[in-house]
Formats: sequence, structure tokens, C-alpha cells
Amino acid sequence: MLGIDPGTRATGYGVIDHERSSRRLVECGVIRPRSTHLNGRLVDIHAATLGLIDRLRPDCVAIEGVFTGRNARTAMILGHARGVLVLAASLRDLPVHEYPPREVKKRVVGTGAATKGQVGFMVRQHLRLKETPEPADAADGCAIALCHVFAQTPGHVGPVVLS
Amino acid sequence: MLGIDPGTRATGYGVIDHERSSRRLVECGVIRPRSTHLNGRLVDIHAATLGLIDRLRPDCVAIEGVFTGRNARTAMILGHARGVLVLAASLRDLPVHEYPPREVKKRVVGTGAATKGQVGFMVRQHLRLKETPEPADAADGCAIALCHVFAQTPGHVGPVVLS
Repeated sequence: MLGIDPGTRATGYGVIDHERSSRRLVECGVIRPRSTHLNGRLVDIHAATLGLIDRLRPDCVAIEGVFTGRNARTAMILGHARGVLVLAASLRDLPVHEYPPREVKKRVVGTGAATKGQVGFMVRQHLRLKETPEPADAADGCAIALCHVFAQTPGHVGPVVLS
Repeated sequence: MLGIDPGTRATGYGVIDHERSSRRLVECGVIRPRSTHLNGRLVDIHAATLGLIDRLRPDCVAIEGVFTGRNARTAMILGHARGVLVLAASLRDLPVHEYPPREVKKRVVGTGAATKGQVGFMVRQHLRLKETPEPADAADGCAIALCHVFAQTPGHVGPVVLS
């Protein structure tokens, strides 16, 4: 499954293979549009996401949900990025699941007020990685993917550290 | 040129042919996504816009600009629709011009506080139509196209009624 942390300048992603209690990081990284204008960035983000989906074949997508804590202008610009990301997933017939930022932190770290550093640390623990994914946007993409995995796990209400 | 008034439930559009002082309405209407979910609506809006562009071959697109007068959630949802519209235009290599709602009203009606009814009336006058385009979303699409035409006209600062 593909987790996405949307942004017009940096869109973090993480692809996780999961079966029952085992989960494995396939790939994570950051989509950084080369264009300097929003319109070109949307084209870059859309194309890169279609490319990711076609290469890694995730079975579903989880994306940070619509939230309300920013000003209207910032929210609308972010909405553009989300729009072309959701479009890419929908064009490939992938279901899209949305999780508010607080739920991602709550499920992955145990508290909705977790810091970026705590999220990165717990992503590393949950996926048994030797190092924390860098940059933080990539770790956030993994966290959103993990959030979905945990949300699908019956009885799972908070983080379970395997290592 | 294609003018677009974006919305997730109804996206108004108007295509205008213009040469010097003459301008002609080619087509106007409303894209109404059939899907009940936002994701499906984005797919519908994107596909319909690509279809419009491929059929009517506008040379550029004008779209209502990013503005700040709504709450963050509403703005973000609207941003999704704008994102897939701008993407469609950019994928067809069309330049995208943005105009704030107040500028559209100011250029088409003469006042930034114009009502929907006044916008429709002036669209009818400017395009020498027998009737006001219906519904209002279609007239708004035409108004945005007209705004761009007027903005490109040297010395034009307000509405010029031809009839």
C-alpha cells in the first residue's frame, strides 16, 4: 500500500508490503516537482504519482486527510496537490483512504501531538529499519501507510512496536 | 479562449472566440460530475475538461483565482477541483490565467460587488446574446472568459457594452 503526505513543494511517500503481522518497507522518498510554478508542479506531481503506482503496484492509497487548521489560502493551494494525487490514484482504480494528521500520529506514535522526530523514530521501529527514513517527508509518507495498516488491523488501537 | 468557474458539484465554463473588437460565444455550459464521492468527481471533472479542450481547441484558459474569503475546509475542497482543472489545461500545454472573483465582476459589470443577476445580464450584453446563459454557473464561466479578453485589451479598464 502507498502512503502519501501531500505538498506542492515536497510530497512524501512510502510503499509498504503487509501480510498479517509482517510488514516491509518497499520504498520511500519524496516527489519534488522541478517546475517553479504551481501549474507545472501539479503536472510533475501527477506524473510522478502515476509513475510510482505503475512501477510499485500498490493495492490502495492512504493520504493525509482534509483538515481545517490552516488559513484558507494555504489550504486551497494544498488542495490542488491533493486533487491531482487523488486523481492519479482514482485513474488507476485504487481506493483512497484518508486519515487526519492527528490520527496518523496517534496510531503510529501513540499520541496525536507527536513531533516529527518521534514519528520518524517510530516508523523506523515499526518497519525494523536500521535508520530513520530521511527526509522527514518520506518518513511521514511511511507513517500514513502504517496508519492505514494499523487501522485495518482488528483490535489495534495504538502503536505496537515489534522490535 | 475557455473561461472556467470551478466547483466540485458544478463547474461552469464558457468558450469565446475573439478577434480585436469582435467576440462570439462558441459554447457555454456546466460540468456536473456524476459521482457522489469527491474522488470520482475529480476524475469526472478532469475527463470532461480534457474533452472540452480537445473538442473546442481554446488557445488559453482563464480560471477564477485562488482567494481567501472562505473557511479552510471549503477552500481545500475547492482547491481539489481547481487542481484537476489546472492539470487538464497544463497537460494540453495551454496557458492558465487567474482572476480573482472581484476582478471578474469589476471588468465585466463595472463593480466588484455585482450580483449573479448583473453578471448574467452583462454577459448577455457583451456577447450580444438573445438570452442570458443559464444556469448562473455557465454565465460565470463566460464572465471569466470575458474578463480575460478585457484584461488583454489595451486601455480597457471596465465594461464596454457593444449593443
